[in-house]
Amino acid sequence: MHIAILAHENFPHRAKTALGVLRYADYEVAAVLDRDQAGASVSDFVDDVQDAPIVAGMDDVDDDVDALLIGIAPIGGGFEESWREDVTTALERGCDLISGLHYFLAEDDEFTALADEHGGEIWDVRKPHDDLTVADGVAADLDAEIILTVGTDCSVGKMTTTMKLARDARDAGYDAAVIPTGQTGIMIEGWGNPVDRVVSDFTAGAVEEMLVEKADEHDYLFVEGQGSIVHPAYSAVTCGILHGAMADQLILCDVADRDVIHGYESFEQPPIPTYVDLYENLAAPVSPSTVVAGALNTYGLEDDAARDALDAFEADLGKPATDVIRYGTDDLLEVVL
Amino acid sequence: MHIAILAHENFPHRAKTALGVLRYADYEVAAVLDRDQAGASVSDFVDDVQDAPIVAGMDDVDDDVDALLIGIAPIGGGFEESWREDVTTALERGCDLISGLHYFLAEDDEFTALADEHGGEIWDVRKPHDDLTVADGVAADLDAEIILTVGTDCSVGKMTTTMKLARDARDAGYDAAVIPTGQTGIMIEGWGNPVDRVVSDFTAGAVEEMLVEKADEHDYLFVEGQGSIVHPAYSAVTCGILHGAMADQLILCDVADRDVIHGYESFEQPPIPTYVDLYENLAAPVSPSTVVAGALNTYGLEDDAARDALDAFEADLGKPATDVIRYGTDDLLEVVL
Repeated sequence: MHIAILAHENFPHRAKTALGVLRYADYEVAAVLDRDQAGASVSDFVDDVQDAPIVAGMDDVDDDVDALLIGIAPIGGGFEESWREDVTTALERGCDLISGLHYFLAEDDEFTALADEHGGEIWDVRKPHDDLTVADGVAADLDAEIILTVGTDCSVGKMTTTMKLARDARDAGYDAAVIPTGQTGIMIEGWGNPVDRVVSDFTAGAVEEMLVEKADEHDYLFVEGQGSIVHPAYSAVTCGILHGAMADQLILCDVADRDVIHGYESFEQPPIPTYVDLYENLAAPVSPSTVVAGALNTYGLEDDAARDALDAFEADLGKPATDVIRYGTDDLLEVVL
Repeated sequence: MHIAILAHENFPHRAKTALGVLRYADYEVAAVLDRDQAGASVSDFVDDVQDAPIVAGMDDVDDDVDALLIGIAPIGGGFEESWREDVTTALERGCDLISGLHYFLAEDDEFTALADEHGGEIWDVRKPHDDLTVADGVAADLDAEIILTVGTDCSVGKMTTTMKLARDARDAGYDAAVIPTGQTGIMIEGWGNPVDRVVSDFTAGAVEEMLVEKADEHDYLFVEGQGSIVHPAYSAVTCGILHGAMADQLILCDVADRDVIHGYESFEQPPIPTYVDLYENLAAPVSPSTVVAGALNTYGLEDDAARDALDAFEADLGKPATDVIRYGTDDLLEVVL
């Protein structure tokens, strides 16, 4: 499928979804829309993802694209009216629309009318399906090895770690799949439950449902974690995923040079061993899970500093760890598979 | 306000909401509807709540009631069609309708038409309001003492303990209020956020919002807890309440003679000290909370057995504990206030 990605005024550093899709999805990206960077290329900014021209708007996308994907998420998750012209242009060209915004584009009368008229479909990936329910508590009985990424905070690399481990495991000949739980993961994989948007009572159930569906098809299921068990706002989602997934193995994800909770700077992060104890002790009464390895995001650090940070993290953790982007996944896969 | 309570075929033992309302709400209950017990009285079954006649249906309710309250919750939370005649009769008489079902009665066309025609209102207490959002992480800064009930399992007495502590504290001259988080608590108090029904990302935020609203008005806020931190399905809600409330004090609620998770019998409950560690250790990185006392539900036990169970619970806990229904709240209030 050929797509265009909307990332106005935010590419690349505040366009986490766009980058995730460029890096991991099977879509062929015909163009990235960013009116501030028009004329440049993706490769001018990021070198380890597929390249694409950056253009000012849909009118500059020559290619016959199948879909427009919203690749940024403003604080609050609302729709920016300055994007409307690009969205309507795409729909008028018969494109599908893929969005992970909190505001559902299928509830916009103009967009639905255009989609109906021109045969496009609107996929709000953050809209949970109607049949979700409470967990049965059965994930531990499934016939697949379940590996869950857990974090010290939000935005530390849980999605990236999950995607890379599953892909590299597949490349090495193992039958591995991703269980996507957030909007970017769902866009990349093309399916999944947006666990942070389901009814709170169904949090664990939304994860369990996906595992039950995929356990017979694959040997290894890599569950994309969310948030952190010590996050003042999002810990409920983290806890529901931990107990819904009943993972055999946990991988603790952290980011170098951050000591407080992102966006909640008055909350200090506890020491790494405290995280390990919290995740393992909270999992144990429901289903024992062990932190077997770590993944440290050293983005932006010089090589020496990155190596020092990783050594320190590995010492704190007492388990093998790596930066999956900088050093690859071999060390982690050796532990996990 | 005068109300009738619908509890067909389930009064008293499977009518937790009806009993909670009879015991704690300010409503005057004109009648309980249970076609299996028509002709009896509430006091034939339960002796520590307000009395009311039990009748077969709304036609037998002579009193000029202001509302019909749905006092039972079938598994799945659906509406039973066998209740429809009573509900339409009530609406035709101009009554309001109060329901905590998962199925929203305000989405039933017949009910809304009758309510519009006869001037009644339909209050689905489980429908979250539209302005909920993520927590800011501010509950610890509020100028009120926050006391949260936490549990070993669902249905162990968290709501009852919360209600009784707050009422007895008020009777003793303290300025105390309840922060209701579940359908029965919300019905009793007449307001509140149904925390198990909000978007999972807003779980902590839904609790925090209520605390922020009430902290300036009261000295003591008793937060109604939900579920259990080791529940295979509902732990997400428990975790969100724990971090959203940032309670100063926790009261661990347990029920005698239960060793496994209710409805999930393959899951053994961990020892009491493990619960204490889990709740305290999970709270600590966000805001320190201490388990200061326990509440044991000894319903159905003979006096000697109840006393033995309480002694054992108190020894395991290493803190003062009581059964707030059987022995009153004095011991607990001495610790908490």
